[in-house]
Amino acid sequence: MKISLMHGAGGEVMGEVVDLFSKITNTNAGGIGLEALDDGAVIPIGGKQVVFTTDSHVVRPLFFPGGDIGRISVCGTINDITMMGGKPLALSCGLIVEEGFDFEILGKIVESMDHALCEENVALVTGDTKVMERGALDQIAINTAGIGVADTIIRDNGLKPGDAIIVSGTLGDHGFAVLASREEFDFADQIVSDVAPLSGMVHSVMKSGTIHAMKDPTRGGFASAINEMSKKSNVMIRISEENIPIRSSVRSASQLLGIDPLEVANEGKVVMGVPAEEADSILQILKRHRYGRDAAIIGTVTKGQGVIMETEAGGERFIEPPMGDPVPRVC
Amino acid sequence: MKISLMHGAGGEVMGEVVDLFSKITNTNAGGIGLEALDDGAVIPIGGKQVVFTTDSHVVRPLFFPGGDIGRISVCGTINDITMMGGKPLALSCGLIVEEGFDFEILGKIVESMDHALCEENVALVTGDTKVMERGALDQIAINTAGIGVADTIIRDNGLKPGDAIIVSGTLGDHGFAVLASREEFDFADQIVSDVAPLSGMVHSVMKSGTIHAMKDPTRGGFASAINEMSKKSNVMIRISEENIPIRSSVRSASQLLGIDPLEVANEGKVVMGVPAEEADSILQILKRHRYGRDAAIIGTVTKGQGVIMETEAGGERFIEPPMGDPVPRVC
Ligand SMILES: Nc1ncnc2c1ncn2[C@@H]1O[C@H](COP(=O)(O)OP(=O)(O)OP(=O)(O)O)[C@@H](O)[C@H]1O
Ligand SMILES: Nc1ncnc2c1ncn2[C@@H]1O[C@H](COP(=O)(O)OP(=O)(O)OP(=O)(O)O)[C@@H](O)[C@H]1O
Ligand SMILES: [Mg+2]
Ligand SMILES: [Mg+2]
Ligand SMILES: [Mg+2]
Ligand SMILES: [Mg+2]
Ligand SMILES: [Mg+2]
Ligand SMILES: [Mg+2]
Repeated sequence: MKISLMHGAGGEVMGEVVDLFSKITNTNAGGIGLEALDDGAVIPIGGKQVVFTTDSHVVRPLFFPGGDIGRISVCGTINDITMMGGKPLALSCGLIVEEGFDFEILGKIVESMDHALCEENVALVTGDTKVMERGALDQIAINTAGIGVADTIIRDNGLKPGDAIIVSGTLGDHGFAVLASREEFDFADQIVSDVAPLSGMVHSVMKSGTIHAMKDPTRGGFASAINEMSKKSNVMIRISEENIPIRSSVRSASQLLGIDPLEVANEGKVVMGVPAEEADSILQILKRHRYGRDAAIIGTVTKGQGVIMETEAGGERFIEPPMGDPVPRVC
Repeated sequence: MKISLMHGAGGEVMGEVVDLFSKITNTNAGGIGLEALDDGAVIPIGGKQVVFTTDSHVVRPLFFPGGDIGRISVCGTINDITMMGGKPLALSCGLIVEEGFDFEILGKIVESMDHALCEENVALVTGDTKVMERGALDQIAINTAGIGVADTIIRDNGLKPGDAIIVSGTLGDHGFAVLASREEFDFADQIVSDVAPLSGMVHSVMKSGTIHAMKDPTRGGFASAINEMSKKSNVMIRISEENIPIRSSVRSASQLLGIDPLEVANEGKVVMGVPAEEADSILQILKRHRYGRDAAIIGTVTKGQGVIMETEAGGERFIEPPMGDPVPRVC
């Protein structure tokens, strides 16, 4: 068997690669390990819960409306730490770059990383640099790993019947911004990536509210994240289509290209399940934050299995877990 | 300016890239940060000293005498944690692979990672998988990051006049094993990489001895590591050439190719500075370990600056810090 693009697309097919790693003898350092397949691992150290996670980034183009590979490489890891309930402390940077890459462009990428780090007051404390000869790598790949500390660990499997499902804003922006910057659309300039670090916003929710489960809907989009949450929590989720916030420009692009906005990556959004009685107050906290202005309550959790969409037309259909993200190299 | 292969070769030139990252606003999370340019960072958490480090690996060929990219990707990070005095707990794996890569070969690489992890009882707890389209990446690149805990932090800048300099075994093995597997030499099959995880061996030294400073002589080899230790500690180091352990096969290859065995990467060696009165007992501890059989006392620390080699011919010359490793993609 050969590796296909879908093996890196964050959906069901990627599971075949992850399965290889799951066979490793020791996948847990005393807290939450690889077997949980959550956004990050947790390791107890000195009475603290240390969250540890990593993401590599190979997005094309390197600069797209709303962000660039530097910003995304910092936000990806900050957000996975955050999704575990962690406060991010420090990141590493594993830079791999092609011979001949422009030094000034690298400088701009690093500046953009700095900007995202400063937003959440996270340090970049260690790194590594490798250069591959011309032709051996398409320009640049950036890995970051990160550590944080969680007072309260939040899993992706903690949904309970009765919970409300909230998304922190419009869905599909990043995937379609990347697509639009590759093709030439009329409305391309209206689609801007949502790439953003969510630690501040999520911790302001955690300070005064309860989150039962959360996940960042990155590769595979909302459809992938919500199915994983449903399956791992062993609950059914009912989503109301008319309440899902989607920008009209994204909707137009999605119709033009035949790509479901629920299946493409978001890089600055969180999907959370919260107790019904707290849903409104949490929504208000989110809406007060610059990255949560378009937050919405979009569904409820019930007993059962699977994710059902109540369509605007009045019907019902399953939201299936996607095989992978339809946009290659989206992050 | 454009990125050259030397920007990824671990020597003086790479400093130009690291300088870009050093401009980041926040490079320290309360312990040892990027500004130290040590093997890893240290972050105080819950009264513990958490060591955090990363390395990416792009070595060619993927399988070479004595090791493979999987083993090296685990050992590189375990060793950098160890060089800070840390006991490694957990690693992440950021896998980037080319479309069309053979699944079975990936399986072998993961098995090899597992083997190295088991040697030191380290867990692989989290990861990420990206696939780049055919032609966008030469086969595979593996990043690992890792965290450990240090009871005693050991820096690379702690050498004191009077210290003895010890290397844990023969120098140049990895670099020449990689070179030999690329070219066709007569003696190629006699050169085997030293790639190995050093946590067990180093911590058995730390249990009953004092280490003032240590570093793993990876890219840029011994010449790079010893110069960095000298400069950062603000001391002179005198090395006795005849005491440096170098395999005869490596010596032959080095003469044939005109490449200095002191400038190529080792992946299972440590250079340490220890109090003179402890040098013999530490040497014995090292020699009892499978990865330290050829350990040797090779020099002394004095007041002054620079690294001087007392040659076998009876002369003296400086060991200069190399611009970079002469072997591209050595790790
Ligand atoms: N190469 C790998 N080695 C070990 N674990 C992996 C690897 N690739 C993925 N995983 C694990 O599989 C799970 C899913 O990974 P994935 O990268 O999709 O999560 P994510 O980072 O939350 O999403 P995204 O990468 O799209 O932001 C995680 O628990 C991750 O630790
Ligand atoms: N891209 C980068 N971003 C931030 N820091 C970096 C980066 N590249 C290197 N560094 C820092 O520069 C110093 C030297 O890095 P280097 O990779 O040579 O160390 P090493 O891992 O000990 O050696 P090797 O990679 O050869 O095993 C380290 O302190 C490292 O944290
Ligand atoms: Mg995630
Ligand atoms: Mg992620
Ligand atoms: Mg390194
Ligand atoms: Mg090192
Ligand atoms: Mg290293
Ligand atoms: Mg990931």
